[in-house]
Amino acid sequence: MTVAKKIFQLLPHENVIYFGDTGRYPYGPRSRQVVRRFSFQNVNFLLSHRVKFIVVACNTASAFALEQLNKRYDIPIVGVIEPGAMAAVKATRNGKIGVIGTVGTIESEAYQKAIHGKAPELEVYSVSCPLFVSLAEEGYINRKATYLVASEYLDSLIKKRVDTLILGCTHYPLLKRVISKIMGKKVKLIDSAEQTAKEVQHLLKMEGLLKGSGKKSFRKFYVSDAPDRFVEVGERFLKDKIEEVKRIDIEKY
Amino acid sequence: MTVAKKIFQLLPHENVIYFGDTGRYPYGPRSRQVVRRFSFQNVNFLLSHRVKFIVVACNTASAFALEQLNKRYDIPIVGVIEPGAMAAVKATRNGKIGVIGTVGTIESEAYQKAIHGKAPELEVYSVSCPLFVSLAEEGYINRKATYLVASEYLDSLIKKRVDTLILGCTHYPLLKRVISKIMGKKVKLIDSAEQTAKEVQHLLKMEGLLKGSGKKSFRKFYVSDAPDRFVEVGERFLKDKIEEVKRIDIEKY
Repeated sequence: MTVAKKIFQLLPHENVIYFGDTGRYPYGPRSRQVVRRFSFQNVNFLLSHRVKFIVVACNTASAFALEQLNKRYDIPIVGVIEPGAMAAVKATRNGKIGVIGTVGTIESEAYQKAIHGKAPELEVYSVSCPLFVSLAEEGYINRKATYLVASEYLDSLIKKRVDTLILGCTHYPLLKRVISKIMGKKVKLIDSAEQTAKEVQHLLKMEGLLKGSGKKSFRKFYVSDAPDRFVEVGERFLKDKIEEVKRIDIEKY
Repeated sequence: MTVAKKIFQLLPHENVIYFGDTGRYPYGPRSRQVVRRFSFQNVNFLLSHRVKFIVVACNTASAFALEQLNKRYDIPIVGVIEPGAMAAVKATRNGKIGVIGTVGTIESEAYQKAIHGKAPELEVYSVSCPLFVSLAEEGYINRKATYLVASEYLDSLIKKRVDTLILGCTHYPLLKRVISKIMGKKVKLIDSAEQTAKEVQHLLKMEGLLKGSGKKSFRKFYVSDAPDRFVEVGERFLKDKIEEVKRIDIEKY
């Protein structure tokens, strides 16, 4: 949803089909095989709506499945890791980049590989923060408990004196304030949601796929569990109405 | 696993087929429909092993699916709610019982109904504690952050002066120490895992299904995601080897 929000802001004329796998989230603690199988089903569902472009708006799915998705399908599919890694490489001054993410994303070393593919001399330090997703989901945004948990997670990155920190999970921008307070103002936080939206805009332009502003655009939301809670949380977060939302059976795809 | 551990202790001669839905957990935040569909698949899988008796060792699944499971299948299927409710009714002195559980369990009011079915005069107060599952899973057992989160969750129950508190989620026994510290020593904590194991023993006896101690017994573990992390966490928790564990595709059942 953090990625979708940025895309809606940057590309208001595009028609968007959103799928949220609310019946099987979170992906963070799951294995490579399971995340891949889920990701294939998700893409199959989106293709059934004849989309022109797909964003895998989840770091764990990007880390574990993006390469396989791009091998199997012809349509352009982008993830959230490459844009965040690019932005971090540009942002760092002292050559030390921190990465935080789910257990899956960190174990995959996807950010490390992406950063070293561009700048092998940079130092990359990473830490998984498994409690952040639940804390963000439960609205523990600016709370003492979150502060305590975050201080422990981030301690080793402070000691390594990273000057740039990638928020390598689409939930983490919700905890930006706490993370920034702990890391200090001088550390640049890279929000992969923001970077990904810019990348989507760039690629749509490059491939001549941008939609004109003439026709009215639509947004359709699909989820794999009951829509109620999704609508409640989603509207509060988007600060906008979620009009059209349906539950689908993702295991059929 | 907290339920399985108690069953292994109390019924060491029984053969046990354990299924952990590690590819789709946690059930706590999911809707009634999804939890029911998952539960039917889980029972179908266990039946494919020709078990004689099934324990739904999850409060959310018991709350949302037990009745439907018992309607559809002939084999005895028990949940964790009835045994916990019974024990609380027996334990309370001042007639005020607290219940903590996942969002699903609390919204279902399953404990309230079970308690009032036996003793309509008792007062039941319940609170959902959605962060407890992640905290327990991540080993935040005796930590300051957990203490802060728990203090907030339990505050209203302390004010209501409950003298008995049902730990209405199979993860919560892991946080017993923190919960007890906050509630005070005089509040009796009801561990539904323990109560359920006793109930299983009782019912097996009643139905003449108890296995003799003659033949060697086995334990087989199945999970819906990669077994590694399950084995690691499971062995630490059971303080015993998990020899035979296989990944299955639960969506086929």
